[in-house]
Amino acid sequence: MRFVLGVDAGGTSTRALAVGTDGTVLGSGRAGGANPNSHPPEEAVANVAAAIRAATGEPGRASACVIGMAGAAKLTDPAFAALFERTWRDLGLDRVVILTDAEVAFASATDAPDGTVLIAGTGSIAGRIRKRRMVATEGGYGWLLGDEGSGFWLGREVVRATLAALGGDGGLGPLAIAVLAEAGVDATDRLFAWRRLITVVNAAAPVRLARFAPLVAVDDPAAAHIAERGADLLVRTALATREPDEDTPVVLVGSVLAEGSRVGERVRAKLSGLRVRTSSDGVFGAAWLAAVEAFGEHAARRPG
Amino acid sequence: MRFVLGVDAGGTSTRALAVGTDGTVLGSGRAGGANPNSHPPEEAVANVAAAIRAATGEPGRASACVIGMAGAAKLTDPAFAALFERTWRDLGLDRVVILTDAEVAFASATDAPDGTVLIAGTGSIAGRIRKRRMVATEGGYGWLLGDEGSGFWLGREVVRATLAALGGDGGLGPLAIAVLAEAGVDATDRLFAWRRLITVVNAAAPVRLARFAPLVAVDDPAAAHIAERGADLLVRTALATREPDEDTPVVLVGSVLAEGSRVGERVRAKLSGLRVRTSSDGVFGAAWLAAVEAFGEHAARRPG
Repeated sequence: MRFVLGVDAGGTSTRALAVGTDGTVLGSGRAGGANPNSHPPEEAVANVAAAIRAATGEPGRASACVIGMAGAAKLTDPAFAALFERTWRDLGLDRVVILTDAEVAFASATDAPDGTVLIAGTGSIAGRIRKRRMVATEGGYGWLLGDEGSGFWLGREVVRATLAALGGDGGLGPLAIAVLAEAGVDATDRLFAWRRLITVVNAAAPVRLARFAPLVAVDDPAAAHIAERGADLLVRTALATREPDEDTPVVLVGSVLAEGSRVGERVRAKLSGLRVRTSSDGVFGAAWLAAVEAFGEHAARRPG
Repeated sequence: MRFVLGVDAGGTSTRALAVGTDGTVLGSGRAGGANPNSHPPEEAVANVAAAIRAATGEPGRASACVIGMAGAAKLTDPAFAALFERTWRDLGLDRVVILTDAEVAFASATDAPDGTVLIAGTGSIAGRIRKRRMVATEGGYGWLLGDEGSGFWLGREVVRATLAALGGDGGLGPLAIAVLAEAGVDATDRLFAWRRLITVVNAAAPVRLARFAPLVAVDDPAAAHIAERGADLLVRTALATREPDEDTPVVLVGSVLAEGSRVGERVRAKLSGLRVRTSSDGVFGAAWLAAVEAFGEHAARRPG
């Protein structure tokens, strides 16, 4: 029986699916993270290989393999490319396509070849998709230079709102109380709490500000206002990748944009004139793209 | 002859002045940095003592000593306080007042006891001054959480504007060209330059973004727009510390607010209804405050 391989290589784990021509999932595998920005190349590629081997005993029989990888842009490094080629040869794979996580996420949610992918997790970025490949991006500068509306940005804004509340004369609302609790800061002495919150946040890695992002869901007008601003920034980022009258789907990806999340729902409301889809799981998109690669657009079946 | 000591303890150097009752500068000294946020306590206090000893051979004869110190808030730490006390005793000093750098900067520019100090160097903060002491602040959260309008902020914005220009379809203006030159990034291949600029900025400490701040002076509408936004943020920060009809002076401090600087001039224009002064040099403010401390408000003479 013919089958294809789809792989989703992320920062914390790598998953692989072996999927038959009719969409049946024949096997699945999991291994450690494989983002070349945060893992040494040897480790990243070993984790991809381990996930593939766990999904199928005969990887060499796969008709195609598509790997979605955060940080795939880094793979232009020739040393990296040689290491990957050697690994595919060892596995017996001869048709391997490496795509970005954004491309497999887009494909996981829609059959359309063109559209927009909007990602908001710890960071944020939007991509213009043409023929299932990302041809342009907006944002994605990383936390230091941008990532507006991302988990980092939302976390920073809720902390800033809390510092402003501590410095003001009014009472502390539910958002400020929740932020201080998350930071483990006692609110009894407000000036002390103000200093302590700044110290606690600066003692951790900057991206750890994203841990405060879920507090944007707190029932507090200050939190609603931040969610609204974040949603505005994300929508602006997404629209910047589109033609004025573009009618293609917009695929939402990441925890900040999850269905039912405060920011996600505001983004959906703001994009209500467009076809908005939610990415299920990148590994399904990768497997489907592998089927398209191997069997063609019309014969490819989605896994499930 | 009676004299007082003024000390300005900064991040990179510490300066001391010995000033006679008539304002004559009797001696000056210089030593390494003494900001307790960036120097071990022992080193900070040793540098303060070295600067004082260089300014006068007989520190024990000083009628008073005022030390302006960035990071003075840290001195609430009891271990720190004990170390300082011991040092003053060794010097024979019995009247030492430690103030913030903001307080001595305010006093360097005006005899008024009340007003506003607005500081914008790498970071930014505004303080409400009452009886020559800072009784409330606005901003000053540090680069990760705030510092709007600061050198860090301006540097980040000019880099962001450059990334946007590189990602757009138009030509690169003078600002983008200057930013790429400062970062040492070749602009021939725009996609490469985009990635490379992000990489270069992220490879350095975040506060090093402030090195791009002077480029806000480039003759380019994009730079003028950033300067205008920065000035608006700084003015908003300053006004937040003032009563609605307050008529006290506003003292501007720091490289971003220097006379003739683009942001400084925009801030002066926006505050044109108020008495705006420019801080000369914190060490003069410290020496004058020491004279006020020792001889009283009316007998004190400004050094010079």
